Amino acid sequence: MSEWLSTLRTNSPEEGYELAVKLSRMAVKLTQPDADARDRMRPEYAENAESLIAVSQVIATHFATVSAANDYWRDTD
Amino acid sequence: MSEWLSTLRTNSPEEGYELAVKLSRMAVKLTQPDADARDRMRPEYAENAESLIAVSQVIATHFATVSAANDYWRDTD
Amino acid sequence: MSEWLSTLRTNSPEEGYELAVKLSRMAVKLTQPDADARDRMRPEYAENAESLIAVSQVIATHFATVSAANDYWRDTD
Amino acid sequence: MSEWLSTLRTNSPEEGYELAVKLSRMAVKLTQPDADARDRMRPEYAENAESLIAVSQVIATHFATVSAANDYWRDTD
Amino acid sequence: MSEWLSTLRTNSPEEGYELAVKLSRMAVKLTQPDADARDRMRPEYAENAESLIAVSQVIATHFATVSAANDYWRDTD
Amino acid sequence: MSEWLSTLRTNSPEEGYELAVKLSRMAVKLTQPDADARDRMRPEYAENAESLIAVSQVIATHFATVSAANDYWRDTD
Repeated sequence: MSEWLSTLRTNSPEEGYELAVKLSRMAVKLTQPDADARDRMRPEYAENAESLIAVSQVIATHFATVSAANDYWRDTD
Repeated sequence: MSEWLSTLRTNSPEEGYELAVKLSRMAVKLTQPDADARDRMRPEYAENAESLIAVSQVIATHFATVSAANDYWRDTD
Repeated sequence: MSEWLSTLRTNSPEEGYELAVKLSRMAVKLTQPDADARDRMRPEYAENAESLIAVSQVIATHFATVSAANDYWRDTD
Repeated sequence: MSEWLSTLRTNSPEEGYELAVKLSRMAVKLTQPDADARDRMRPEYAENAESLIAVSQVIATHFATVSAANDYWRDTD
Repeated sequence: MSEWLSTLRTNSPEEGYELAVKLSRMAVKLTQPDADARDRMRPEYAENAESLIAVSQVIATHFATVSAANDYWRDTD
Repeated sequence: MSEWLSTLRTNSPEEGYELAVKLSRMAVKLTQPDADARDRMRPEYAENAESLIAVSQVIATHFATVSAANDYWRDTD
């Protein structure tokens, strides 16, 4: 796996949110490196409300980190 | 998807709470982009106490971030 | 819904805790606006230990935010 | 309910931990005010590993808040 | 129970992690004081992946607190 | 177990993320020291979407701690 996370800085809150999504997905890749296994599980969570909410929780936790890293993008307001 | 998150600053805690709700919903949209699939799941969580509590947890996490970003709206007190 | 959250400041930790409870309940109202549906679910979580613990977790997260917003009520000690 | 939370300051980390336990229990009391109902649920969670872990999570969240409120008891080290 | 938590300061991140484990276990002891009951539950969670992950989450939350209390052991780097 | 965590400092966010993964796994090792038992559980969570999401949540919590410990790698930007 080549370099995928060189910085936590982003240009905007929206890009920060996208980074939080990326950070949440990378944990799954590192824990289950088999792409086929991940593909088999996709319907299991993408069609399941509880799983989607749980994914949202992970993203929210990462978004808190990314937001702090960017000082909440105060300079760009 | 056009720009949906230009700033974490809001005029009041109440608007900050609304932004936290929006941030929690966007994660679901990005993980399950199919609007029909999301609609099918809606009764699954809106009528289910455990799911509603889990959604509340995601909102609480985002509200912490938005509150910090606004320095807890201390200036407006 | 009229204004329900004008400030995160409270006079004491105890009022801060009550605000955290209010913040946790508002998420449910915004996600399930139908009061009858919420009433039907009430026994589902008020009589269920796991649901009560999950509600406690949401309140704990909001209490962290409210406590920080009040600088932990250090001035009033 | 008389005043139960006058301050987040404690004399030691151990007392801070006890306060975190108290904060976690109060959420259950406020959500389910009926003492008999709470008593009926007690075996449901005190004999259940998953529930005990979930309670531990709530306590951990409150302990983070209480620890910050006491500046991690650095003065008493 | 004699004094078990006199300080959050540790000499290293590794000792801080051990303290986080101790903090997570103490919550279970305080909620279920009966040692026999706890022993009966041990296989229920030590052989169960979901329970082990939930325990890990509690430890992670306490490790965040202990790390902040030690200013992330920056002085010892 | 020899020393496994001498510092929370890493050279980059990516190494910080790897440390967060390591921190999440160590909790499982300390709670279930039997390597065979852990191996038996591996398919239980690596093939299960909900478990993978729960693992991601633990990693996210540790990544928040590691990121703060490194001041969000601002010096290296």
